Amino acid sequence: MQLLEERIRRDGVIKEGNVLKVDSFLNHQMDIKLFKEIGKEFKRRFAGEEINKILTIEASGIGIACVVAESFDVPVVFAKKTKTKNIAGDVYTSKVESFTHGRVYDIIVSKEFLTKDDRVLLIDDFLANGKALEGLADLVQLSGATLVGAGIVIEKGFQVGGEIIRSKGIHLESLAIVDGMDEKTGTIQFRKQKWDDLD
Amino acid sequence: MQLLEERIRRDGVIKEGNVLKVDSFLNHQMDIKLFKEIGKEFKRRFAGEEINKILTIEASGIGIACVVAESFDVPVVFAKKTKTKNIAGDVYTSKVESFTHGRVYDIIVSKEFLTKDDRVLLIDDFLANGKALEGLADLVQLSGATLVGAGIVIEKGFQVGGEIIRSKGIHLESLAIVDGMDEKTGTIQFRKQKWDDLD
Repeated sequence: MQLLEERIRRDGVIKEGNVLKVDSFLNHQMDIKLFKEIGKEFKRRFAGEEINKILTIEASGIGIACVVAESFDVPVVFAKKTKTKNIAGDVYTSKVESFTHGRVYDIIVSKEFLTKDDRVLLIDDFLANGKALEGLADLVQLSGATLVGAGIVIEKGFQVGGEIIRSKGIHLESLAIVDGMDEKTGTIQFRKQKWDDLD
Repeated sequence: MQLLEERIRRDGVIKEGNVLKVDSFLNHQMDIKLFKEIGKEFKRRFAGEEINKILTIEASGIGIACVVAESFDVPVVFAKKTKTKNIAGDVYTSKVESFTHGRVYDIIVSKEFLTKDDRVLLIDDFLANGKALEGLADLVQLSGATLVGAGIVIEKGFQVGGEIIRSKGIHLESLAIVDGMDEKTGTIQFRKQKWDDLD
């Protein structure tokens, strides 16, 4: 998605250790106009798919998911992160390993809001090692709902997450795939996608 | 806001201890169409005010803030909750006491995204004791930005938060104010507001 790649080039900051900071428009301050365009692009890439619910994960996925949901005219459910063992039987639970924070946490979603009749699109801001997305896919499977696909704003193509998700046969669409970054020159290399020619 | 009050009456669940569960449409599963109407209503109530940024707090405020932001055509910044002491000098910090979780946590916002030129509207889903809203107002004050007002979806009118915020001279608009709830009969009493006559 050209608009997004241009924005990442302009406002993204490359930090040591392959960190890409995009918190001026994506995950701390949020550019809602850009989110609208992101929503239209996901709608284009999942055209013809029957989707009745978007599932995301707190916190930075929520804003994007809600604006994207307008393009699909569906409600959003967000999975909650929790470190407390959930004793109630009214939630689906999965485990997510966070490399950033060096710990494992549970993600939960109320059984009420994910059922076998749902056709679910996963939405998140970043895909790196794929653990969060795998956790969300787990919740969908536990509920008996149908996983239609996953929409990611920025995929780190040099990490394993994208390959893992695609190898499971999940329809994954990443609007920008970063194949390489150079901290010293500030350059970012984006993967060419078939959608680019249709822009 | 009549549409909201009707929705709370229909889908809200009153639990022991004056708990009002609205997680089927507001803060776990999120009805984006309702959020659009909420955005229009805030726009009406803050008509004529110059606002260039919305500030909210993770997690359940984010979705509402992002959809509301479309009505104001402004970006959203969300304050992050953290329990780790922040050593970096590049953030504004305030403390929030959570009665629900029985602990105090820090909320932070990057100095980059809140400056003295900003005219800020606070948005959150619930107002009860007012601690979260006071924390957000603190962050605005620390940054030197102008606090234009605060928009809340549901205020628990029988708790002190609303009074505290209003007594500080902050322009507070709560779309539904619950003055009483009866767990046994399932009835909810809403405060009459001047806006009701204009619906």
